[in-house]
Parts: sequence; C-alpha cells; structure tokens
Amino acid sequence: MHLPLTDWFPILRWARGYGRATAVGDLTAAAVVTLLLIPQSLAYALLAGMPAVTGLYASMLPLVVYALMGTSPVLAAGPAALRSIMSLAAVGAVASAGGADFIAASLLLAVLVGAMLLVMGALRMGFIAGFLSAPVLSGFVTASGLLIAMSQLPHMLGTPLRSSNLLLFGQSLWQHAGDLHPLTVAVGLAALLVLAAARRWLKPGLLRAGLSAGGADLAAKAAPLLILAGFIALSWWQDWSARGVAVVGEVPRGLPSLSAGVLLGVDPSVLRALFLPALLIAMLTFVEQISITQAFAARRRERVDSDAEMRAMGAANIAAGLTGAHAVGASFSRTAVMHEAGARTPAVGLITALLLGVTALFFTPWLHHLPLSVLAATIVMAVGSLVDGRSFARTWRFSRADFAAQALTFAVTLLVDLVSGLAVGVLASLTLHIWRSSRPHIAVVGRVPGTEHYRNVLRHEVVTQPHILGLRVDESLFFANARYLEDRVSAELTAHPDVRHVVLQCTAVNDIDASALESLRNIHRTLQDAGICLHLSEVKGPVMDRLRRSDFLERLSGRVFLTHHQAISALDEPAQDPAAQI
Amino acid sequence: MHLPLTDWFPILRWARGYGRATAVGDLTAAAVVTLLLIPQSLAYALLAGMPAVTGLYASMLPLVVYALMGTSPVLAAGPAALRSIMSLAAVGAVASAGGADFIAASLLLAVLVGAMLLVMGALRMGFIAGFLSAPVLSGFVTASGLLIAMSQLPHMLGTPLRSSNLLLFGQSLWQHAGDLHPLTVAVGLAALLVLAAARRWLKPGLLRAGLSAGGADLAAKAAPLLILAGFIALSWWQDWSARGVAVVGEVPRGLPSLSAGVLLGVDPSVLRALFLPALLIAMLTFVEQISITQAFAARRRERVDSDAEMRAMGAANIAAGLTGAHAVGASFSRTAVMHEAGARTPAVGLITALLLGVTALFFTPWLHHLPLSVLAATIVMAVGSLVDGRSFARTWRFSRADFAAQALTFAVTLLVDLVSGLAVGVLASLTLHIWRSSRPHIAVVGRVPGTEHYRNVLRHEVVTQPHILGLRVDESLFFANARYLEDRVSAELTAHPDVRHVVLQCTAVNDIDASALESLRNIHRTLQDAGICLHLSEVKGPVMDRLRRSDFLERLSGRVFLTHHQAISALDEPAQDPAAQI
Repeated sequence: MHLPLTDWFPILRWARGYGRATAVGDLTAAAVVTLLLIPQSLAYALLAGMPAVTGLYASMLPLVVYALMGTSPVLAAGPAALRSIMSLAAVGAVASAGGADFIAASLLLAVLVGAMLLVMGALRMGFIAGFLSAPVLSGFVTASGLLIAMSQLPHMLGTPLRSSNLLLFGQSLWQHAGDLHPLTVAVGLAALLVLAAARRWLKPGLLRAGLSAGGADLAAKAAPLLILAGFIALSWWQDWSARGVAVVGEVPRGLPSLSAGVLLGVDPSVLRALFLPALLIAMLTFVEQISITQAFAARRRERVDSDAEMRAMGAANIAAGLTGAHAVGASFSRTAVMHEAGARTPAVGLITALLLGVTALFFTPWLHHLPLSVLAATIVMAVGSLVDGRSFARTWRFSRADFAAQALTFAVTLLVDLVSGLAVGVLASLTLHIWRSSRPHIAVVGRVPGTEHYRNVLRHEVVTQPHILGLRVDESLFFANARYLEDRVSAELTAHPDVRHVVLQCTAVNDIDASALESLRNIHRTLQDAGICLHLSEVKGPVMDRLRRSDFLERLSGRVFLTHHQAISALDEPAQDPAAQI
Repeated sequence: MHLPLTDWFPILRWARGYGRATAVGDLTAAAVVTLLLIPQSLAYALLAGMPAVTGLYASMLPLVVYALMGTSPVLAAGPAALRSIMSLAAVGAVASAGGADFIAASLLLAVLVGAMLLVMGALRMGFIAGFLSAPVLSGFVTASGLLIAMSQLPHMLGTPLRSSNLLLFGQSLWQHAGDLHPLTVAVGLAALLVLAAARRWLKPGLLRAGLSAGGADLAAKAAPLLILAGFIALSWWQDWSARGVAVVGEVPRGLPSLSAGVLLGVDPSVLRALFLPALLIAMLTFVEQISITQAFAARRRERVDSDAEMRAMGAANIAAGLTGAHAVGASFSRTAVMHEAGARTPAVGLITALLLGVTALFFTPWLHHLPLSVLAATIVMAVGSLVDGRSFARTWRFSRADFAAQALTFAVTLLVDLVSGLAVGVLASLTLHIWRSSRPHIAVVGRVPGTEHYRNVLRHEVVTQPHILGLRVDESLFFANARYLEDRVSAELTAHPDVRHVVLQCTAVNDIDASALESLRNIHRTLQDAGICLHLSEVKGPVMDRLRRSDFLERLSGRVFLTHHQAISALDEPAQDPAAQI
C-alpha cells in the first residue's frame, strides 16, 4: 500500500504555515501541560513498576515522534494511567518487578505495541477497534480504575501488598494489616488531602481573592507540581528517608540513552508471552486515542485521520521502548488542558518534550527525596475519572445482554487480571453479536388478496398454496445465521408435507458469504433428494453477481424470479392438475 | 431452564410405538454397521493414540446413551476420524503418547467435551456452531485429512516419524528415510491395495457374477472386516510379529470397567490445558453432527432437534470417557450405511452396542496378530472423503476474503497443529465479519424535486440545504460500526461548514446496541459543543422502544420526526432568515 510522505509525516503540511500567532498558542499550551506532565510522568512510571525517571523518558522522544506524525494539535501523548497498569500486569506475568528483566520486558512491550499499531495503521486496519464494544470498554476501565487505586495502597501504607487482582489484594491486606508504617501513611494521607483541596478550592479561592481568571487557572494547573515540590522540601528537611519512608532515591541525570541492546537481550519466550497482551494494549490505546481526538476534533471542526493517528502512536511507542520507557498512550486530562490553553499545532509536543528534556538534564537530583506515597496519592487522585458506576445502571436499563458483557468484563478484570478481563470482554462482545445475528427473522409469506403483495402469514390474512412454500429472510446471510436457515427450511418442510416448491424471497438479503452459499447448496441438495424444487425471487443485484461467481445458479433445480408474485403465479399453474406433478 | 423428561430422553416417545416392522429394519442396519464399525473402531483408537481395544469401548456405552437421548434414527455415533486425531493433538500436547498419563488425559478430554456439549445443549446454545464458518471448516477438514494420512505413515513404514505438523513430519521423514521396515511396508501396501480393490471392484464383480443386489452390497460392506481377518490369519501363520512387524498385541477380553478413578487422578493443570481444545472439539463435533443429521433428516422429512442432539452427543462423550475411551462423534460414512440399510429408530445404536459387546467379550484375543500397518491402511482409505481440494477453487471464485480465511486455516492446521488451526480459523471468520460490518453504507441524502422522497446525493439530482445535513445509515448499528458513524459525521461536518442541523434517517436501522448508543451520545455531545442540533427521522418501533430505555431522547437537542420530509420541512423554515439562527 503506497502512502505519500506527507501522509506519514503531516508535519510537512502544517510546518509551512507556522507563524508567530500559532507559536504563541503552542508555547502557552506546552508550558501549562509540562506543569501537569512532570508529576504525572513520574507517578505513571511508578504505576508501571518502572523507575520514576523513565516517566520523563516516556515524555520526550515519544512526544517528538507524535508531533512529526500525528494529526491532532491537542492530543497529549505520553504516559497514561491505563497503559501503565496494563504494562505492569502484562510484564509482571513474565518477570518479577524491579529487576533488569522487568525493565527489559517493559521496553519490549512498548516496542511490540508500537509495531502493531504502526503495521495496523499502515494497512488501514482501524476497524479492529470495533472489537471493543462500549459496555466492555467501560466495564474494563472502571475495574482498572479500582485496580490502579489498589496498586497504590502498598506505597501509601508502606507495606508490601499484592494487587494484581482483588482476591490477592484482600488476602495480602489481611496478612499485612498490622504492618503499616505510620509516617508513610501520614505523608500519603496528607498529600491526598492537599491535592484534593487544591483541586476543589484553589481556583475559586484565588478568584475570590481577586486574581485574574487566567492567573487562577494557571495556579490550579501548577498546584500538583508545587505540592510535590513542597513534599520534597519537607522530606529533605525532616529526613523522612532515614525514618523509613520510601523515597524515589538516586535518579540518573541526563537524557535517556538508546536501549536497543537491552531489547536484543530479551528471551524469545518473553516475546511470545507478551504478544496477546501487546495486541490488547494496542487495541485499547487506539480506541482511547480515537475517542479523545474525535471528541476534541468535532468541537474544533477538524478532521481526524484515524490511520495516521494509529501510525503516530505506534511510532511513539517504539520511540518509548527504544529510549528506556514503558508503553505510552493518549491522556484525556492533559488533552483537555492543551485544548483550553489554546494549542494550535502538534508543535506543542515538540516544545513539551524540550521542557521535559531540560527537567531531566538539570532537575532530577531534586527528586531524590520525593516520597513514593506522595506520587501514589497523585495517582489515586487521577483514578476518579476512570470509575463510572452509573454506566452499569444505564447499560442494564438499555440492554440486559450488553450489561452481561459489561459485568463479566468488570468481574474478570477485577478478580483475575487486566489482560484476561479485556480478552474475555472482547470474546463476550463477539459471542453476543453472533448470538444476536444467529436467528434472523424468517417469515412464511402469502399473498394479500387482490394485490401482488406478499406478507407474513402470522400477521396478515393472506392466501397460500399447499404445494408452494414462500419464505422471506429478513437479514443478510452469513456464517452465523446460515445454519439457522437450513434448520428453518427443514422445520417448515415437516410442517408442510405437501410442498413441492420452495421460493426464497430475498428482498432483505444484502450479502451472502461462502458459508451461506454452502447452506443454500445443502438446502438445495436435500430438497432435491426429497423431490422439491428451490426457487429464488427478488434477488438484489450485488447478491446475484456474487451467486454468478459460483455454480449455484446453474445447478439450481428451480428458477430465479424477478418478483415473488411472478414466482407464485408461474408455479401455481400446474397445480391445477396435481396428478401431473406426481 | 426446565426441560420435560421426554425432551431429555426421546426414547420415551418412540419406544411405545416400537414393533416388529421397525425391529427388522433396525436389526439389519445394526448388523451391517457392526461389520464396518469393528475395523473402524480399532483403527480410530489407534489414530487417537489409544490402545486398539478402547475403540470397541467407544462403540458400546456411548452408542447406548445416544440411543436413549438422540433424535435421529440414522446418526451413527461412535469413534470418528477427525475427533480421534484432534484428541491425539490435544492430549499429545500435555502427555507423551502411550503412557498411562496419556490415556487418563484422553478420557478426561472426552468427559470435558461431553460436559460442554451437555451444558450447551441444556442452555440451547446451538448458535455457537455459527462461529465455524463453512470455508474455515472445509480448510480445516482438508488439512486434517492430510495430517491423518501423515500420522499413519509411521505405522505403514515401520519407522518412528513425528507427524503433529507438516514441518516436523518432513524433518523426521528426512532423518528416517533409510529406516524402513520392508515387511511392514509390504504388508501395509498390500492391505491398501486389497482394500482399494474391494471398494472399487467387489460389488460390480459380484453383480456380474450373478449375485443379488442385496448380497453384493452386504459383501462389499463386510469386505474390510474380512480383509482384516485375512491379514490376522496370515500374520499368525507367518508369525510376522517375530519378524519385526508391529501388531496389536495382547488385548484384554471383556467389557470396559468404569474409569472414574483414573479421571480423578489427573493433574488440574492438565484440565486447564485441555479446556480450549475441548471447546473447539465440542464445536466441531456439534457442527459435524448437525450437518450429517440435517442432510439425512430432510431426505426422510424428519425434524432435527439440534439441542437434543447436542445433549445426546454430550452424554455419549461423558460415557466414553467414563468407560475408558477417547472422544466420540458422528460418522458420515456409517450414517449413510445406516440410512441405506433401513434404520428406523435410534434402537439401532442399542443393538450395535450389544454386538460390539459380544465382540469384546469373545473375539478380542483374535486381534493379537493384527498388524498395525493394516489398521493404518484402513484409516488412509477413509481419508479421501475428508480432502476436498476443489472447495478452495470454489471459495476463491466466490469471495477472496472467505478464501483468505480458508487458506489461513488450512496452512496453520498443517504447519502448526490442529488446535491452533481451528482457533485461528474461528478468529479469522470473526475478524472478517467485523471488517465487513465495520463500514456500513452511509449516504448524504437530498430531496428528489417535486416529491417527498430523499435519495443519495451522489446518485440522484436532488435538492439540499446548506444548513441541514441529512444522513441515511443503511445498517443496524452495533459495536463494530458505531465508531465509523462518528467518523463519518465528523468528516461530513468538515465538508459542510455551514451545517446547523444534522438529521439521521434511520429507515434501515433494525437494532441499536449499547455501543451504538454511546456513539450517538458522543455525536450528540460534540455536535452540541459545535452549536449543531441532532435530529432523528423514520426511527423503527423496536429501536424507538430501546432508545426510550435510555435518557438519550430526553437530552436530544433536536427532535424525532416521523418522516424525513417532515424533518427537512420543519428545519428549513427558520433558515429563510439566517441571522435569526446565529
């Protein structure tokens, strides 16, 4: 498939029109989003089981790559909560947290996810996002939110807890309930309270105090970073680390180095084990990214090129893996901030990456004393947006079957693990869909007296002939419902023993696949064995073209009629002398 | 779900009408099918990697159970080629052939398959058969036929070859090409030639020699058993066993004993590993069984109750596992024989089981000298009916996409293994279907001048209004295409910057699932943000009922119109003074 270079790199299109007006919007947006991104990136690296500094790495090259290849000016690529915990879940199954193996596998996972997105984008395979139905996605995201909160409790309580699913978590909480580290708990709770208070009261408070709207807004955005700085200062001053509070510790200064060597050292069995999780993460990443870009693009009357978005996020993930970071995705909260702050082009990402680079070069030593429980509090604060209990009630009211898929996904995610939850959810949606399609409406039709109309015998007063059976199929025929047609025809034959002609009225059949053709063949063969002719009526053009590509029409014992009425009129004639037929 | 006892045991219905006439038909059919079943059951046990005598076990209690619970008078349950090789493939992955572990796992697999069929039958889940599309099934069956033939070559050549896939087979054939055992090869080839000759020339020859049609037919059916007996005699006389030809060896005499103890000793990890293969085998067994029963039921104008059939085959498989045999299924060749021989009721199965019991009680010692290469030749003879090369050409002509699924299934089955082949095939069908459904036809519509008809702007000369966008969706909305609708609406908005009203014409929308509702919500929200109203027109009753169960209609910024024309007329009015709208 040939793609022009400007499709691969949309920057070639927008860079030419870049000027001072756009630059001002982009610079402001980049500055604001950096304030949010620094604490988030450290926290989400922690959530993925990686060293905190790799969160900064995940916010540099990947953002540059997205800026070159992406089409949305406001989409904030980089570390994101769901991606981080899925990375932990997937990699945690093949390596033990904290080791070099774990880091290598995390990078490999990012590269795998990236490669899959890149290939799917290049092949225009955006349709695979369709596998994730909305109820399954919401059940999964809500359960993930709870798991994310659970996963931060060990950091906030200062005690080791297993948190890959609810059962293990409950069990280990029971065992370690007495092992809390009081100072860690106090610091974590304090951070949680201060963060919550800042989110709720800072902006209205500053406005009431007479600050301009812009100033109050900026202060509210900078608050998490300032709170982090405050806790770092406190931790350093009181030497919390010496008093048993876990802190971030030594953080290497400087830009990330290329990690291709680490990747090549990974065992092939790890690659195999990460394949399915990578596919599910890639699907999830794409669905999330498209939902976010679409929400903002429509507001801005911009067009989203979902294949270009997929390629850009794929390349960004490969960049993450190659520069020592875990898988990245799109962040809803930061995207909203970019939109409000007036981002105009994807150049925002380039500027943000630059600012993060400066942070990594000069400010990482300052992170040494940052308590992990404070980072954990940052994550717990972000979980609220993921948990959506009301969605379950809405789905329940709307459709019991969809609710079953949602509840199943939620339960498996919470009780087994994230990867199984998503996999089971996808299977449940598909099963549900096949179940819904497996029994199309098929009506026995008869003639409405005095007209050339044929309608369902159960709903209308119609005329039928004992030796002709007219059946109308109200659905395209494909593998999930093909067999049902065979079933129904054989059932109707048992109910109508005098039938010598079956006419299938194909008004509503838009398509026929190879399975349905096979079923038609079977129906034809068994009818032929029983001495019954099969006819078709009102076959649509495309279906007729398709049937002509097989030998079905040549072998057909009966005929193809333009209208159902012609069929019945033609077949009714000889019946006036039944003996002639036998 | 409550099922009356006569639904569980249809024998309670037909046994009352049982008389001399039916008994004669059933006895004849049972005698003829027994002649075929003895060699086949021994051979298929060998194919499943089990001791030959377990083939007899698989033909006793399972047949009795099917007779009690099944509805088809002609369906021949028992050992079947495909089931046997799938059992070998599934169990071979968890235990090494020939050991006690292997036998225990084979029995467990039969019980698992049976339990799944029983549960699916009781819950009326026949629709799961829809997951196996016809091209996938035919690709799989053809590849299986080749694998079955390959699996018999070690027995026919007298040399150990690995045959779980084509690559391993080729490799080991290369290594062992010189290790043939000449006498084994000669015996196998001789058996193959005699069997082929008997199939081809025996019946016409006897007819020409003046035998009655019935006599010639019976002789042809008995031929395989007689040929087996001939080779047993030769083998005993020449003492082939002492000359290095592998023979069946010591065969326990008597009826099978209950093997519940063996089953309880199986490791739980084996149970987990066998779960997916069991599910695939259960689906395959059901699909095969239904195809076979349907083919004959229509000829006989009988009704097939597919749920009852599923339950009966499920119980038969549990019976097989509990009496020391591998998984059973329906045999096409033996069913055809039963039909021709005039079987009248499922009692045929009871009589056949009785005859097999007599064989097991008195004749098993005679099997000692039977060369394995002769049994292998019996299997190779049966493979022809599975391999269907022309089906590929037919599918290719009919639909490239279906062909891709068929070829992929064929290749994976042959090159990787049977279980992966079937799993990949199911996934390929589903992916294909989602792909096909993911981009429904959506037309921008305008008014045909002088009428109240609205048609596609690309195909007709129609009138449109710059501030109204009419869209017609030609498909039910569900998770696979919901997102595409969002895409299209946002694309059309970019193309029509003056639009202030979007009207979705829902003529062809038969159903809406929770994902599509979510998409409608998203579309509504983003349109609202952009100051555009969303309206619906021509919504069908059931879809309207469903929408009423959500709060979508209450929140809708626009209105729901009975006809598209009413919508356009109502919305066109205020446009005469555009200033009033802004």
